[in-house]
Formats: sequence, structure tokens, C-alpha cells
Amino acid sequence: MLTKTDRREFLRTTGGIAALTALASGNSTKAQTGPKAGWAIVGLGNYAQYAMQRFTASQQSRIAALVSSDPAKAAQISNRYGVNSGNIYNYENFDSIKENDDVSVVYIITPNGTHSDLAIRAMEAGKHVIVEKTMAATSADAIRMIQTARRLDKKLMVAYRARFEPFNQNVIRMAREEEFGTITSIVAHKGFTIGNALGKNDWRLDRKLIGGGSLVDIGVYSIQACRYIAGAEPVEVTATVSNTSGDPRFKDVEESIAFTLKFSNGCLATGSSSWNYSLQNYFRAVGTKGWVELNPATSNGNLRMFASKDVVRSGQAPQPSRVVEERHFTNIDQLPAMFDHFSDCVLNDKQPLLPMEEGLRDLEVIEAIYESARTGRAITPIYAEV
Amino acid sequence: MLTKTDRREFLRTTGGIAALTALASGNSTKAQTGPKAGWAIVGLGNYAQYAMQRFTASQQSRIAALVSSDPAKAAQISNRYGVNSGNIYNYENFDSIKENDDVSVVYIITPNGTHSDLAIRAMEAGKHVIVEKTMAATSADAIRMIQTARRLDKKLMVAYRARFEPFNQNVIRMAREEEFGTITSIVAHKGFTIGNALGKNDWRLDRKLIGGGSLVDIGVYSIQACRYIAGAEPVEVTATVSNTSGDPRFKDVEESIAFTLKFSNGCLATGSSSWNYSLQNYFRAVGTKGWVELNPATSNGNLRMFASKDVVRSGQAPQPSRVVEERHFTNIDQLPAMFDHFSDCVLNDKQPLLPMEEGLRDLEVIEAIYESARTGRAITPIYAEV
Repeated sequence: MLTKTDRREFLRTTGGIAALTALASGNSTKAQTGPKAGWAIVGLGNYAQYAMQRFTASQQSRIAALVSSDPAKAAQISNRYGVNSGNIYNYENFDSIKENDDVSVVYIITPNGTHSDLAIRAMEAGKHVIVEKTMAATSADAIRMIQTARRLDKKLMVAYRARFEPFNQNVIRMAREEEFGTITSIVAHKGFTIGNALGKNDWRLDRKLIGGGSLVDIGVYSIQACRYIAGAEPVEVTATVSNTSGDPRFKDVEESIAFTLKFSNGCLATGSSSWNYSLQNYFRAVGTKGWVELNPATSNGNLRMFASKDVVRSGQAPQPSRVVEERHFTNIDQLPAMFDHFSDCVLNDKQPLLPMEEGLRDLEVIEAIYESARTGRAITPIYAEV
Repeated sequence: MLTKTDRREFLRTTGGIAALTALASGNSTKAQTGPKAGWAIVGLGNYAQYAMQRFTASQQSRIAALVSSDPAKAAQISNRYGVNSGNIYNYENFDSIKENDDVSVVYIITPNGTHSDLAIRAMEAGKHVIVEKTMAATSADAIRMIQTARRLDKKLMVAYRARFEPFNQNVIRMAREEEFGTITSIVAHKGFTIGNALGKNDWRLDRKLIGGGSLVDIGVYSIQACRYIAGAEPVEVTATVSNTSGDPRFKDVEESIAFTLKFSNGCLATGSSSWNYSLQNYFRAVGTKGWVELNPATSNGNLRMFASKDVVRSGQAPQPSRVVEERHFTNIDQLPAMFDHFSDCVLNDKQPLLPMEEGLRDLEVIEAIYESARTGRAITPIYAEV
């Protein structure tokens, strides 16, 4: 059960149901006629190039600057998006962005292990920061980022785009409203086959760059989902790793990892992540009176929701139902919704929907999972007071 | 990957694919004109009364005797099924069944903690034994049962009815034939709400009678499924228990338990069982080239299979597919199929499809899960050589 303290804590750290439902109803994506926040894009890899395309659908955000170690690539991309050539930076002169009033937001889309240093440099340069997941390679780095944001009064948010779209937001609402009774179980799996579509030189196979394996690449979505559905924090974690021996892709990083999470409110979660699955991307929240599943759960579009509620007849005990209904919400363009939310916070000095501690909590759970897999012991995560 | 040794071991202990597919194609349920084996039903509770109704559809099995501590109930049921009043036993005079040539099979449907003593007494009385799951309350008891069967040359089988129907058998076949590539993950969950439909005096809430909690009641289906899909044995187990504090149903037994299993071939399974879920009964096997799910997976009827295979285009790497197809098999009457298989083995001196070690292996894994939950350590199950 969600105790009153759990609930209060959860609402405090998420901005509450009102904030969630306001976003879900699309208030944040209506046409704006005011100024657009200028964003600097740090890192110009595949995902960054995909994300940049979505600025065309953004009402309050524009690409104002680029940061790259590759001048030719930066020049080409600056042409495509009309970025002034004076607004192209590399990692040596990046700090001089402090002088550039055209940029108010720095969006970091580099390998995970570089996030914290770049985010801290950006905040020292006076900018607000949005950073791709995971927030950093370690919780210690994430703490330094949060401390810097506090000291310099900068906004800092992890780019959990699924938190800005209606399917995931409605699962959270249904869980809080106990539509399916008390949520006693969560199942969350993510997987795909790495090294085929993206080539064997995928940077994610380098532990120094990513800080882990499939868990930090895609499992972080499941950790986030388990936490926002449970509305509580894990207090006990177990985990097991499996790597195919001799597979060169996985000599340095974990291929597959399975975990259990026991939450402070008694909810039990099981999940896994793998770079050696056929595509898996779903979660299911099981309550005492029904269940709800998103499948796909956290892809950027094409989400679907399925649900089943036990049948209650007057004067009888509830009976389980085999009737599964599909529930329909709008598949929104997630990235522009997230961009505009953060720009709105920066332009109008609002608190982001997602407090910066969200990224730290995920890393603390991930570190407990890795420690459990390494030691063969159930681990109680340590949550830093920052 | 399934190594050659794994595969050989699996085929040895399951009787092989040929045996599975022969059953799946319905060979065992065709009309028989020969004699029927006489069965003694031990225990006349709810499930036993349900099972007895299914003897009407059985071609090689008939109810020949009853064993109960309740003479009135036994008399009433003997009338319904035309059982000779001389063939009614209680637990004191049960051993005299040795003199009764009308009975060749004893079917034990009593609380789990009583299985081993009754099975051993039945074998000492010269009878073959089929026993409901779990095989016994402990692996030590299961070993004594197996040793007795070996010493007295009796057939002994655990009543895993799902092994006798086409949906589960075809999942096993698909896994062995690697239709979805190497199976790298299995997800298996079972749950329902205890104490509503069946009343608060359900014997399963008494640890002395059941030997555990939801795991031995329903989780055993998931353990079986993970083992027969993986075609290998778990080598590392982790687990976490959660009980709702203050709920009188769960003061003595576990309510919910979540586990991970790492198999000798590298496959990772996650699962859970609970007496405090809305109805859950499914498993999903995920391979490197697709996945297959049964949902419901092990109910007695109404099973459904869903599958998705990655799309392979000439000259390209495999692409994950979002296309889910339903695959149709016949929902057979599982109990008569199982009864007739065992009767056929007894009448014609054949080896049962399921070796008796299957029940022991499940108990050894269950005990490792409980030990992990109790100690907070990853546990390597110990598999007895019997």
C-alpha cells in the first residue's frame, strides 16, 4: 500500500498529479507566440541528429548553437539548421559559450561518461542544462551535477521523454488513483539486438564511454518506470548478469541483466534488459483488482495500452476477468513536448516536471543492481541527501 | 545457447521431442477398446472432485477406489461414480489396498505436506503413483519417493497437466528447434487473490500442510515452464519476498515472491507468484530472433499463443518486427489426456513422458529460491543424484 508519507513524498518529487495531467492534456504544446529559448546541442551523433529534426515541431525552443569535436560535421549541420557559424563550439572552447546570450539551454547528448563534466561546465557558463539518460556514469557524478545546479541556481533535468506523453502519464494517474487496486507487482523488460543495425563500433559497447552495459543504455527506462508506477523507492535489490561467452560485443559490458526490486510500500518488481533480445519494450502493473500494460511502453511513438479489471458483482467477491480492453490516448511527438516544457521553465522561471533528483535515484538503483550482480547479495540502495 | 550436452540431457529427461509431438498430435486420446486401469483417488477436496469429473472423458482410466478421512463424503462420492463400497479406504486402513487387484494406480490429491508418506505407502502396497504438484513438501521427501519407486520398480509421476497439451508442447518444440533463435530470456508470472473465492479457511494458508506459500501453490508452474522452455537447469537463483503486514491470510506463508533464474546455457528468467494479484497466468520466451507468449499459459483450457518473429530481408540484418500473430492449437481436455498417458504406461509398461526427477528438480529450485529470499544471497541449487 502507498502510505500517506509515500504519497506525499512522491507528489513532492514529481510535481504532483496536476502537473502530470496538465501536460497529458496537451497544454504544453499549444502554439506560442512569445520568444523561443536558444538551445546548444552538445554532441552530434545519431540520436542528436534525430532529436534536432524535432525542433521544427517545437513552439518555444530553437537550435542556437552546436558543440562538436568534428568541425566538418558541425559546419554541415549548422547549414541545415541555420545556425550562425559563430555559434559552433568544440570541447576546448566550449566554456566561452558563457559570453553567448543567444544560448540559454545546453542539451547534452554525448556518451554517458562525459555528461557530468559537460553539464557542470555548461552551468558554470551560466546555462540551464537538459541531459540525456543516464544522468551521469555514476551517482557521485550526478550528485556533483545537482550540487552545481543548486549553487548556481540553474535548472537541470534528465531527458526522460516518456514522462511527457499521455500513455505513461495515465498509467501513473491510474496507479495513484488505485484504479486497479493496490499495485502489488510491476514487470518491465527492454531489449534489442545491438551491433546489427548500428554496426559493431557502437560506442555503447565501450564501458568507459557508457559506464555499464544494457542496463544503463535501456534498462534505465524500466527502472524509471518501476519507480514512477510504484510511487516509492526500492529498498532491496537482487540481480544476475548473463553474457554469451566469446561474443566480442560483450567482452567489456553486460549483455543481459535480470533484477528484482522490492519497494518501500511492498510492491515487487521484476525486469531485465538485454542487448541480445528480439525487440522487447513493455511494462505491466498488476494490482489487486486488475492490471494495465503498455506495449510498446517507452518507444518514441506507437505506444499502446491494454488493461483488464476484475468484475465486481453486487454482493459477491471480485472475480478475475479475462476481458482485456485496449485504451486509446494520443501518441504525441515526445521530444518537442519535452523541449518546450524545459524552455517554458527556463523562459518563465518554473520548476521542471521532473526534479533533477530523478536521474540520481535511477543511478542509485542501477548501482545497487550492479553491486548485487557482482557480490551475489541482496542490496539496499543508498539514497543520498543532496 | 543450448550446448550439445544440455540438449542431450534435456531430451533424456523429457523423453525427447518425438514423445512430445506424439502427444501433441493427440495420439494418446484416441478411442481405446482395451482395459481401463483402476485408479484410487486419495483426498476428496475441491480439486479432487473437479478431477474426478474428468474421468468420464478418459479412455484408459476409471475411478476404482476412494481414500478419505470423511466416511460420509466418501460414501456420497462413491455413489456418484459407482465405486464399490468395499473400495473405500481411510488413512488408517489405506495400506490394505495392497490386496485390491482392482486398483493399479494411486492418484494423490492431498495437501502437499502429506504427499510423500502417502506415495511411499501406495508404492509399498504395490501400486503405481501419480501425485499432484508439488511432488512433496521438501526435496528430501521427493528423494525418498524416487528411491522407493526405484527399489520397488513402480511408476511415479507428478501431475503436471500442462505438459500434456499442445500449446505448452509446441512452445517446447519451437524452443528446441530455435524458431525464435537462441532463447535468452523467459518471463513467467502466476497470481490470483486467495481467500475470497475459496474462503479464509483455505488449507493452503497453513504452512504445515502446504510446505511454503504462493510459490509452491502456483509458482511451481512457472518454475516448470522456465525449465522446460530453457531446456536446462538453473545454476544461480535470487529472490525477494513481500508480505502485506497485518494481513491475516499471510501470517504463516509468503504472499508474493519474485525471483531471477540463471540457467546453465546462459538464459535468464524472471518471474513471480502471488496470492495478492489480480489473475496473472502467462509466460513469454524471448529469443534472439523473436518471441512467443502463452497467455493464459497453464490454466486448464482457454490457452492462447502469441508470437512475433523478426523480419529478415535478403542481404539485410534481421529487423525487429512489431507484428504479433496469434497461433492456434487445440485446447484439449488436459486431465483425461494425462490420466490416459499414465494408464497407458502402467497397462503397457511404458516410461512416462515426465520422469519422476522432474518433480524433484522443481523442488530443488524452489528451495534455492526460498533460501535466497531468507539469506539475501544468490544461491546455486543443489541437484541430487538419485
